[in-house]
Amino acid sequence: MTAQQNTSAQQQEPVSDVPKEIERGRFVRQPNRFTGEITAAPGPYPAEAGRYRLLVSYACPWAQRSMIVRRLLGLEDAISLGVVDPIRDERGWRFPEPDPVTGATFLSELYLATDPEYTGKRYTVPCVWDTVTGRLVTNDFPHITTMFETEFAAFHKPGAPDLYPEELRPEIDGMNELVYATVNNGVYKAGLATSQDAYDEAVDALFATLDRLEELLADRRYLVGNRLTEADVRLYPTLARFDAVYHGHFKCNLRRLVDYPNLWGYARDLYSRPEFSGTTDFDQIKRHYYGTHKMINPSGIVPRGPEVDWTAPHDRAELGPA
Amino acid sequence: MTAQQNTSAQQQEPVSDVPKEIERGRFVRQPNRFTGEITAAPGPYPAEAGRYRLLVSYACPWAQRSMIVRRLLGLEDAISLGVVDPIRDERGWRFPEPDPVTGATFLSELYLATDPEYTGKRYTVPCVWDTVTGRLVTNDFPHITTMFETEFAAFHKPGAPDLYPEELRPEIDGMNELVYATVNNGVYKAGLATSQDAYDEAVDALFATLDRLEELLADRRYLVGNRLTEADVRLYPTLARFDAVYHGHFKCNLRRLVDYPNLWGYARDLYSRPEFSGTTDFDQIKRHYYGTHKMINPSGIVPRGPEVDWTAPHDRAELGPA
Repeated sequence: MTAQQNTSAQQQEPVSDVPKEIERGRFVRQPNRFTGEITAAPGPYPAEAGRYRLLVSYACPWAQRSMIVRRLLGLEDAISLGVVDPIRDERGWRFPEPDPVTGATFLSELYLATDPEYTGKRYTVPCVWDTVTGRLVTNDFPHITTMFETEFAAFHKPGAPDLYPEELRPEIDGMNELVYATVNNGVYKAGLATSQDAYDEAVDALFATLDRLEELLADRRYLVGNRLTEADVRLYPTLARFDAVYHGHFKCNLRRLVDYPNLWGYARDLYSRPEFSGTTDFDQIKRHYYGTHKMINPSGIVPRGPEVDWTAPHDRAELGPA
Repeated sequence: MTAQQNTSAQQQEPVSDVPKEIERGRFVRQPNRFTGEITAAPGPYPAEAGRYRLLVSYACPWAQRSMIVRRLLGLEDAISLGVVDPIRDERGWRFPEPDPVTGATFLSELYLATDPEYTGKRYTVPCVWDTVTGRLVTNDFPHITTMFETEFAAFHKPGAPDLYPEELRPEIDGMNELVYATVNNGVYKAGLATSQDAYDEAVDALFATLDRLEELLADRRYLVGNRLTEADVRLYPTLARFDAVYHGHFKCNLRRLVDYPNLWGYARDLYSRPEFSGTTDFDQIKRHYYGTHKMINPSGIVPRGPEVDWTAPHDRAELGPA
């Protein structure tokens, strides 16, 4: 019934896809294996321009975060970027051609080069490769962005926004926890559930948070402190994927993003900025989700819709500074 | 990964489900096996009150047609109704308890009693059972409603509408052909396709017709002749299922019904009548589609959404008579 790229070169020990992260009907995301710290102060991984390579997929919401922050802070020259194909098979993420910096064809090569005993269920993006030690420093996605914001301060462009200001960190961290548990990861808990209970619970929590955010965004432009912060960067990638894939493919269909006037305006406000729109590739997003999760879309067919105008005016400028 | 009712009593020769109706990636609906004619004039199956039993599922759009017409014409006493469970397994449609009139537990028993050599891929509703000969007269769904309208005229209630008036038949038939090919059956062609080309083609044709109907319904209340006809009865069951199942489950997601102001008002106008709303069971519809088509929804999980208000005012009364 399906026919994607199931080709040669199956030497790599196969690592199974998402279904293995199911425990009693519930999707339980695997822990992040590499948690090295790049530091402004001297240490095993000192922050240096040109030393590290960020590896991402345009399809992946966790990776998009790191690309948005890299651009907002003007770290493009300091930290290079390697991009994998949107479609992954049982061998995991693959570069369209061998990555010129790391030499890898499959992302798995970098995982196994760093830890030959790696036993994780998937090889995940985003992750950061150190060209000096030839090791993956981190695939700890929640920490990659804050590391760019704090430890790479010396390399930020002039006038770069402070996305993680000290005085707002408690509030940002609190918002991030809620948004991670119920929205960012909540859509996965809904979509990959194999029990009705697990699905129902995830969907309830997801829409309860969206309803709350809708209210909150009625009279402010951003989630925290009325300025653009890490909290907005983390919410956006899920909103960008919401109607395109989570609504249908992950059955998060109580309401659509476009049915929330404030959230939808907020999302378009962010999309109007090149750091957000330039890292949002709806075609890769759709092909990835619909083509990769065979256990929920065996045919691999990618829907035509939805027809949504992300460039419609948002009218939110009056609620706060850009 | 899935767990539905895969129980005992597998004596019945298994008849495979929809996937067998796929030819080179395209869904091709099987022909209808029984095409007997109940006639007002004398014949093998004369129209009589109390003789025939209509067998339906509330989930099935083809069956809903026949229930709507039966009610609109006041044939409830003349033609009895047997209703199967919304969830069907590889044994096909099943009665919640043995049907008191036919004695059948599975619909297949009636097919095989009538034709022991039946080789169709599915046992379909709606169909009409004759209690006198103990045979299925017809499962030819496009003809069941027009038969009720024409051959059962003597049993219509006083003041029953003429749903298939002679002078409008060419126009009604033309509309029905278009709606069948691109909408009623079009959603199945999209949703059950196993090739991207077949899907794309079906979705394009579906939305082209919906766009055309949207225009047509801007200044008239009904599809043909500005009166309620068989054409409306045939379009409605697909609209009732559109946002609930076809949009997500069948990937018909370019636009939703609620995104078409005229079509959505038209659908609510019909829904405001008991013959339409009383035969529309959204819960059974959702459980049937999401629970039955394992090849497109292996987990069998039924989505919570969408949240849609079918009882919102429609404001279409001024466009034509009720």
